[in-house]
Amino acid sequence: MKRLYIICFVLVVGLNVHADERNSGSLLENHQAVHVGIVVADLEAAIDAWSKLLGIETPPGIVVGEGHGDNPTHYRGNPSEAKVRLAFFNLENIQIELLSPLGEEPNHWAEFLAKHGDGVHHLAFRVQGIGEVYLDELADRGISLAQKGGWDGGEYIYLDTVDSLGVTLELLERYEQK
Amino acid sequence: MKRLYIICFVLVVGLNVHADERNSGSLLENHQAVHVGIVVADLEAAIDAWSKLLGIETPPGIVVGEGHGDNPTHYRGNPSEAKVRLAFFNLENIQIELLSPLGEEPNHWAEFLAKHGDGVHHLAFRVQGIGEVYLDELADRGISLAQKGGWDGGEYIYLDTVDSLGVTLELLERYEQK
Repeated sequence: MKRLYIICFVLVVGLNVHADERNSGSLLENHQAVHVGIVVADLEAAIDAWSKLLGIETPPGIVVGEGHGDNPTHYRGNPSEAKVRLAFFNLENIQIELLSPLGEEPNHWAEFLAKHGDGVHHLAFRVQGIGEVYLDELADRGISLAQKGGWDGGEYIYLDTVDSLGVTLELLERYEQK
Repeated sequence: MKRLYIICFVLVVGLNVHADERNSGSLLENHQAVHVGIVVADLEAAIDAWSKLLGIETPPGIVVGEGHGDNPTHYRGNPSEAKVRLAFFNLENIQIELLSPLGEEPNHWAEFLAKHGDGVHHLAFRVQGIGEVYLDELADRGISLAQKGGWDGGEYIYLDTVDSLGVTLELLERYEQK
C-alpha cells in the first residue's frame, strides 16, 4: 500500500512538472523550440550548403525515418507507408532538421514540397503525453492533425496550424526510459 | 601613441572574437539562430494564435519597421519605401518574429506572401561588420542579396539561400554602442 502511495506521488509530481505551462493556458509544456524542420528536394545538396555555411568539415549522416509498429504513420487520417530521409545540424540553441521525402506514398513533407518547393516545414516542441493528453486537448481547441507517426522510442504529431500560427507545429515526444 | 596601441589592440582582439567561427570556414560568427521570421497576411490573428499557444495573457505590441536614412531599404538592388508591421514572442531559446508587409512598395515579405501564403520567411543570425566584411564575402561565395535595410541602431540583409539552404538567411547587426 505504501508503495502505491509512492507511485501515485511520483506520478502526480511528474504530471505537474509537465503541466506547469499547460496550466497557465499554454498548449505547450515549455517554450523551448527544439528544432526547425526544413523540407528539401535534394538532401545531399542541402547538407553540403549547411555544412559550408557552418564551417563543418564532416557533414552529418543521413537516416531514414518511417512508421513503427506501435506508431504507424497516418497522413490526414489514413495509414501511409511514407518514408523520409533526415539529417540534423546542431546549432548552439536549436537543431536544424533537414527532411526529404522518399518514395511515392502520400505524406505531409511531399505535400509541402509540391506546394512550396524547399522551405521551412515545421517548428518542433517537446511534450509528454501525446496519446493521453494532447489528442483530446487538440480536439477541444479545434486543431486538426496533418500527420502522426513515430519510432521505437517516441512519437510525433504535425498540427494544421499554418493558417493560425503561420507554420506547422510539431509536438514531439521521447518516451522516458523505463 | 600609447593610446593608439591600446585602440589597435582592442580592435584586433574584438575582430578576432567575431571572426572565430568565420576563420574556421563558417560564413557566420556563431551558430546561434536568434529568431525565426514568419510572414503572415493577418498579423493580429497570428498574434492572437501565438498568444493562445503560449498561454500569454498580454500579447506583444506591434511596431512598424521601415528604412532609415543611413540604411535605406533596397529590394533586389532597387530602393524601396517598404514598410512592415512586426511583433515578437520570446521563447526560451529563440525569438519568433511575426512580419506582415504594409503598403504597396515592393519588398521580400510581400514576394514571399504572394508565392507561398503565410509561412516561415527567414532564419536570423547575429553578425558584426555587414558593410565592411560580409558584402565582399557573400560576393566571393556567390550568394546574392534579396533585400537590405536597417534602423538607427543596426542593419540587416536577407540572402538568396532558399535554393541552397531551404530558407532565406538573415544576417542581423546591432551596432555596438559608442
